[in-house]
Amino acid sequence: MRMVDIIEKKRDGRDLTTDEITWFIHELTAERIPDYQTAALLMAIFLRGMSRRETVDLTLAIARSGDQLDLHDVAPFVVDKHSSGGVGDKTTLVVQPLVAACGVPVGKMSGRGLGSSGGTLDKMESFTGWSSAMPLAQFKRQLAEIGLVLAGQTAVLAPADGKLYALRDVTGTVASTPLIAASIMSKKLAAGADAILLDVKTGSGAFMPTVESARELARIMVDIGADAGRKTVALISDMNQPLGHAIGNALEVKEAIATLQGGGPADFWAHCREVAAHMLLLAGKASDLDAAKTMVTEVRNDGRALQKFRDMVTAQGGDGRQVDNPDLLPQAQLVEPIHAPQTGTIATIDTAAVGWAAVHLGGGRLVKSDQIDHAVGFILRAKVGDHFAAGETMGEIHANDATKLAQARQELLTAIQWTGETVRPLPHFYGTIS
Amino acid sequence: MRMVDIIEKKRDGRDLTTDEITWFIHELTAERIPDYQTAALLMAIFLRGMSRRETVDLTLAIARSGDQLDLHDVAPFVVDKHSSGGVGDKTTLVVQPLVAACGVPVGKMSGRGLGSSGGTLDKMESFTGWSSAMPLAQFKRQLAEIGLVLAGQTAVLAPADGKLYALRDVTGTVASTPLIAASIMSKKLAAGADAILLDVKTGSGAFMPTVESARELARIMVDIGADAGRKTVALISDMNQPLGHAIGNALEVKEAIATLQGGGPADFWAHCREVAAHMLLLAGKASDLDAAKTMVTEVRNDGRALQKFRDMVTAQGGDGRQVDNPDLLPQAQLVEPIHAPQTGTIATIDTAAVGWAAVHLGGGRLVKSDQIDHAVGFILRAKVGDHFAAGETMGEIHANDATKLAQARQELLTAIQWTGETVRPLPHFYGTIS
Repeated sequence: MRMVDIIEKKRDGRDLTTDEITWFIHELTAERIPDYQTAALLMAIFLRGMSRRETVDLTLAIARSGDQLDLHDVAPFVVDKHSSGGVGDKTTLVVQPLVAACGVPVGKMSGRGLGSSGGTLDKMESFTGWSSAMPLAQFKRQLAEIGLVLAGQTAVLAPADGKLYALRDVTGTVASTPLIAASIMSKKLAAGADAILLDVKTGSGAFMPTVESARELARIMVDIGADAGRKTVALISDMNQPLGHAIGNALEVKEAIATLQGGGPADFWAHCREVAAHMLLLAGKASDLDAAKTMVTEVRNDGRALQKFRDMVTAQGGDGRQVDNPDLLPQAQLVEPIHAPQTGTIATIDTAAVGWAAVHLGGGRLVKSDQIDHAVGFILRAKVGDHFAAGETMGEIHANDATKLAQARQELLTAIQWTGETVRPLPHFYGTIS
Repeated sequence: MRMVDIIEKKRDGRDLTTDEITWFIHELTAERIPDYQTAALLMAIFLRGMSRRETVDLTLAIARSGDQLDLHDVAPFVVDKHSSGGVGDKTTLVVQPLVAACGVPVGKMSGRGLGSSGGTLDKMESFTGWSSAMPLAQFKRQLAEIGLVLAGQTAVLAPADGKLYALRDVTGTVASTPLIAASIMSKKLAAGADAILLDVKTGSGAFMPTVESARELARIMVDIGADAGRKTVALISDMNQPLGHAIGNALEVKEAIATLQGGGPADFWAHCREVAAHMLLLAGKASDLDAAKTMVTEVRNDGRALQKFRDMVTAQGGDGRQVDNPDLLPQAQLVEPIHAPQTGTIATIDTAAVGWAAVHLGGGRLVKSDQIDHAVGFILRAKVGDHFAAGETMGEIHANDATKLAQARQELLTAIQWTGETVRPLPHFYGTIS
């Protein structure tokens, strides 16, 4: 096969064969395709699209480009979760303990945060000594013993995806639905998931700006899962405002702990319960969604979910006392209130801008090598549709630098649009695709 | 400016600004754009197209990426010619002496042949000692003294085109009309042409397979010329069969000399006379096409054009006796007749296949480093619509290797389709665009 023939075929809008896609990913992984040819093919895929069959072939080829985990020796049925990312999205920290406490083992390999969305590992590193680095044997042992692991890249999962993503990022070919779907699903397949729950966010803080585009991406990913023989369900959830109140690593960990203790913001708990219940359904642990939600609520109320979380923290080297007393987690030196700049109702929140404001405070990364300040961020107790009087407190800014604090306040307030009209609260979910 | 923004803009079908195009070509020439980004942009241009204004901007930016000749100190008005390439196309060897003999100086910088089309410089190197390499001062001196130069890359003309072409060749982005047009016209503009005659070939031996596609390319190039302030005319000419009878370097030189002497194949003379006459019109040397054709015929009949050719050969180190006696040019050891394999009429000729057969004989290059055998090739006295009896002689194969001769005969005969029906002869031209 010749790469230029494959490029020309896709350029002309014709479907690539399974052999052609498999050959391309194999040669790409072996570093035998020059970047300029891959770039040309990516642009042709971006503009010409891919059929369902092609997208499945691409996903499977990428999944097979590295290690392919089989966890069935330690977990009879593996359910994985993927969130498309958002601001204040600490869902994994609550959902995985809930699901594990219901008897479904969850071992997750996560990446780092980059850009306006935070990363789960960065949040967990708020715990002194906690580490996501572990050999596969330890991953499996912890999964068998506790039923809950939050690991980094313990195995070489889908290395072809990393190569493709690096090129997409610099060639204007990121926002291609088949390429996004293949990127996400290939890693889930390689990680050995029997079933996959997808949390596809839509809105001003999400990668997919409209419900329609989120639905299209969700549909393709669910189709890939079905064709690859994995039960897959997608929830379309709202990201037109931050999830919960906390934005920033230690602040989000505290909110997650509060939620596992039975407190926490109502929208965040509703979100976690829904996601966890769908995972239980996928694992065959409950007969219907209502029964699953009841199970989830029970393991929260009786403290079993929090205990799972604590077990995972200590198993991975973290200080369990920080779970029992979250005030021991990193604290910012400066904590100042956020006051409503006017009397009115919140009309919209530019959620990505809020995420960027937290990054600029030091809570995230602009480039991969940036160090994270775990203590900083926002508590924003303000949702679209909420009414405030001028000067009323809407939340707090946690910072370690007065200049950055002032800048973050400015950025945060600019991201919020006000109105004199009544505004309806936003829904949590826009639907389920299965 | 950021390259990724330019890629995304074109990807989304929006027009690039003059500044963006100029910046891209400037950075490309300075080798500050990674190949993968250029490849992605080329594919986006291929699939999204370019407006007339964008194509002109691209052409001018490429033209300005290297030397820009000004020949007005030695030639008051410079007319250049470009042929889109074809099999047996030795037009330059006849047209340039005709035009020069009519008092219009022609100094041409040509490239080498690659693939099924032969190159003018390769053909001329059939003359012992002849060289196309010369400094610009010599180019200008010869242009002033003789009015006729056939040079190689004497100046660094449009180096950005070379970079773009190398990438287009391996990324499936060659056959893009705006990219082809910008490539051709940028070199003509950089070479200092005041007026340009384009010979756009169409058919089985041409880059543009259909009259419609040739017309589209011609239209864009004429528009570029107009917008760049150069008088530009395009002829759409037939390449559904080789031009003239000779295919192969020394064989084509002999046919060109015969044509300048008043002989040669009728179709080839008709072609040369038309092209030369249009160049005289562009230079303002004749009032109308018929008057120009008369002038052209006169300088052929009185021997002045042949003398110009001889002067150019000797000025560039060639042996003038080979012009006077073409039998002194390289001769193949094996010359065998080509017999008609059946009784019938020629329906079609796969002209590119005939060109490749000559390359495989040793007359052209498969890769840039190949050495050329100037003596080998075909004399094919057979045109579409001609009737032959089985066994009748259609021409000759000139070879220096019996195995290659047998293979070339096979390839040549396979390229010719026969019919029992009457077939109309092909036209020489499909129209003029100005």
